[in-house]
Amino acid sequence: MKFSDPASLDHAEREEGTTFAPRFDAHGLITVVTTEADSGTILMVAHMNAETLALTLESGIAHYWSRSRKAIWKKGETSGELQEVVELRTDCDQDCIVMLVRQTGRGAACHTGRKSCFYRRVEMAGDKASLADIGLPRLFDPATVYKR
Amino acid sequence: MKFSDPASLDHAEREEGTTFAPRFDAHGLITVVTTEADSGTILMVAHMNAETLALTLESGIAHYWSRSRKAIWKKGETSGELQEVVELRTDCDQDCIVMLVRQTGRGAACHTGRKSCFYRRVEMAGDKASLADIGLPRLFDPATVYKR
Repeated sequence: MKFSDPASLDHAEREEGTTFAPRFDAHGLITVVTTEADSGTILMVAHMNAETLALTLESGIAHYWSRSRKAIWKKGETSGELQEVVELRTDCDQDCIVMLVRQTGRGAACHTGRKSCFYRRVEMAGDKASLADIGLPRLFDPATVYKR
Repeated sequence: MKFSDPASLDHAEREEGTTFAPRFDAHGLITVVTTEADSGTILMVAHMNAETLALTLESGIAHYWSRSRKAIWKKGETSGELQEVVELRTDCDQDCIVMLVRQTGRGAACHTGRKSCFYRRVEMAGDKASLADIGLPRLFDPATVYKR
């Protein structure tokens, strides 16, 4: 699957048109916000390159690009927590994707075993910011799932 | 307001601790996913630098960094669509923020006048991907609001 070149679109077509021309950044990546289709909960934020975006659309299973491992990252390949794609959306300037998924396995998108990676909120005390756990339970034990 | 240096945290403290040490990228930016606090709807995805993250926390009003204008972007300063911050969350490796807001004004976070920037979904026909409008109404007329 090939994607249209964003440079080929004028402003109106990019923002209001039907041509999908994802704008990958200087590293060839686009940000993906993954949400649970049923609840709208934000599960995680990660990145795709053109290859893994195509793989995701073709297979219906989420494939990201791991920036740390510099490799294709089929989400859940180790943990079993695959993500079945329900819908992809893009934004006005087509440089970001929201992906609605069904989270399989134990329902944990985060490698810490929690449903979502966003399990801490920022709390202010005067001009000091710290983090507080919002209480998402661990649905699996990472030490068991990711054993070497 | 100063933030802790992410390099000062070990892996466990970064992922499970209470120290807020946002990991800005090589350009000094962190990705922010902004959601409507009441509904959980994803309104937009943008970026903050340390200065605008501090401004946001101190003022309770969303301030982003405009990558195109290379300037502080107080959301809604032109359109009146200010965002009142309800809560900030960060993810396991602290390189992304989810911000829950009350969208003021006409309730349109997108410069096209729609509630959300994510108003088009990707549709597949064979191996060809195109975009389809999901039908979000325009809550203001951009030509009037952003007149030069």
